[in-house]
Amino acid sequence: MKSPQQLLSEMRAYAEKLYREIKSGKSPKFEIPKRTLSNVYYDEEKGIIKMGEAESIRYFLNVAHSRKFMQTTLVFSKIYEIIKNNEPTISKRQLYYALKHTIEGTKEVTFEDQKESDPIIEDMEVLFGTLREDFHIGAQSKGVLAGPMVVYDRVMGVEQDCAKMGTGGWAIPSIVEPERLEIKEVTADYVLVVEKESEWRVFNETRFWEKHNCLVVTGKGQADRGTRRLIHRLAYEFNLPIYVLTDADPAGYYIYSVIKRGSINLPYVSESIATPKARFLGLTVSDVDYFDIPRYVFNDLTDWDRKRLKEIRNYEWFRNKEWQRELDLMEKRGIKLELEALASKSFRFIAEEYVPHKLENKMFLP
Amino acid sequence: MKSPQQLLSEMRAYAEKLYREIKSGKSPKFEIPKRTLSNVYYDEEKGIIKMGEAESIRYFLNVAHSRKFMQTTLVFSKIYEIIKNNEPTISKRQLYYALKHTIEGTKEVTFEDQKESDPIIEDMEVLFGTLREDFHIGAQSKGVLAGPMVVYDRVMGVEQDCAKMGTGGWAIPSIVEPERLEIKEVTADYVLVVEKESEWRVFNETRFWEKHNCLVVTGKGQADRGTRRLIHRLAYEFNLPIYVLTDADPAGYYIYSVIKRGSINLPYVSESIATPKARFLGLTVSDVDYFDIPRYVFNDLTDWDRKRLKEIRNYEWFRNKEWQRELDLMEKRGIKLELEALASKSFRFIAEEYVPHKLENKMFLP
Repeated sequence: MKSPQQLLSEMRAYAEKLYREIKSGKSPKFEIPKRTLSNVYYDEEKGIIKMGEAESIRYFLNVAHSRKFMQTTLVFSKIYEIIKNNEPTISKRQLYYALKHTIEGTKEVTFEDQKESDPIIEDMEVLFGTLREDFHIGAQSKGVLAGPMVVYDRVMGVEQDCAKMGTGGWAIPSIVEPERLEIKEVTADYVLVVEKESEWRVFNETRFWEKHNCLVVTGKGQADRGTRRLIHRLAYEFNLPIYVLTDADPAGYYIYSVIKRGSINLPYVSESIATPKARFLGLTVSDVDYFDIPRYVFNDLTDWDRKRLKEIRNYEWFRNKEWQRELDLMEKRGIKLELEALASKSFRFIAEEYVPHKLENKMFLP
Repeated sequence: MKSPQQLLSEMRAYAEKLYREIKSGKSPKFEIPKRTLSNVYYDEEKGIIKMGEAESIRYFLNVAHSRKFMQTTLVFSKIYEIIKNNEPTISKRQLYYALKHTIEGTKEVTFEDQKESDPIIEDMEVLFGTLREDFHIGAQSKGVLAGPMVVYDRVMGVEQDCAKMGTGGWAIPSIVEPERLEIKEVTADYVLVVEKESEWRVFNETRFWEKHNCLVVTGKGQADRGTRRLIHRLAYEFNLPIYVLTDADPAGYYIYSVIKRGSINLPYVSESIATPKARFLGLTVSDVDYFDIPRYVFNDLTDWDRKRLKEIRNYEWFRNKEWQRELDLMEKRGIKLELEALASKSFRFIAEEYVPHKLENKMFLP
């Protein structure tokens, strides 16, 4: 989201502010937007979960703050160094170990646990209004993609045609920021996001992406940050419709919710990672009758499912009549359905009949 | 391992045997090698976990067997159909749903649970002496690879140069059997297998594979079947040395053990999936002194670690003096060390100093 030059200059300016505070005899302080739930709200107009304006101030000259101030300074300067030296992609855990050391002359360590450094990485994201990916701190990557898209990987200096990636697909990198990954050409008409790898393979190997001129993506369960960020880029930089296909169960609907609205735990990154215009293609309990899916491949809702169903129904973005009707139906019939269950019709049914029919007849949920 | 033609012909011959049994008034029967622990042993010469000769016989005309006989027949014929129709890669779960149905005129279902169909897939593997990958039944895939290797994906009809795969790497497909994946050219001198994705990224982005002319692979934790099978193919078809890099903890050593010796749960596939000639490069507790790794990045062994350590020490393939010395040292000092902890030196230390030094000085464990 921000170029290294811009970030380094903003970080330098912030460091100079701290320096001026020290020089003028004041306590240096970090002013960081609050990431607590009380500072989180649903922005109806933008359609995403966002953060409010509240800030917390961390003073060096305050016994209750000074350890955390020290830790903030360490994370701050290590991130500056990473960007400046153009270090490879690292993990939050590598950063933790890189910063952990005893303080000279004491047995005290800078960080006791990774739980102390992780939230400060998030602080840095909100303080500089960017993603930790710009600090070269990547999450685990899982997603794969197939279809007519050509990218240029600036880090490794190679061009890749995602229509020529074979049975494994194109491995979506952990970091897909424009600084590192240029999307050179997309001729696809839309993006189909499939919850599970097993169904993605059917779409890939039957060349669905070629026949229907689209990109087919899977996050292999809950989609990782890189995959969600790529979906966001395709939706807004290339104006592609996004259709999501998950299990008909509360876990599947939550996977859709995270792609569309962002994670409740990470509201400060929603604007760059969530894709409010994504639409839900399936599965639904209504499909069961419509496609005449046999009773013996449904499963009963568990107690956990019923509890999650209640929670999901109360999310503001599920409070529309289409979703409420589906959620009512699920509760009333007490059943759920996995994507794999469509194999009961045939292994290719999902790619050759189910999805084409729903797309053609615009059978989406908002 | 077996071509579709060969498998179809063997399956047809088996079906004809069943037919002859029925025609001659005998009970048709499946004779399947036993997969119980009592029929598993360590083959010291081959260096892998193997199955013994014991067989179990499943008769149709035996009340205790007839349901399982029926299930075996269903799995058998569906697999035949999959190979014959050249279906896309499917999962064990898709197969389960494809086979689940009510039996005409009753409320009885063919399979109550996936736990009933999974073992029969394994039966078919041992019965036909092949891997379920030849039945198009893939496991989840996670592994990625970078380096000088060119493959031809026969399913999708594309060639891929794994030295041009960008920051995400080449996604190792779920199924890498020669029938589907031709390894056209490998100019690498060896294969480095790294337990964790975060370190793999450092090796990839610093172009270790180019500087050291090798392939760098990660299974992202416990390596999936496709990744292990690919390592096996590189080790035996291309005669490449395999070096494995994991955390210095019992979980990491078990990851090495599974790559080298096979999984205790899947002895019947060891010969095609395990890589007995793999060697262990690190991490070890000895490294701590040798590379002067600071005390504050070790972690204490947990009770679980101590229990696993005892178990691992008793595996026959860890009963050599080099490993026993390392395992003793770990127990005595009561510490473990993660790959990420090497970031304490620098983010590039693992790729620019640690691994090159250990390789150059042949600091391996067997």
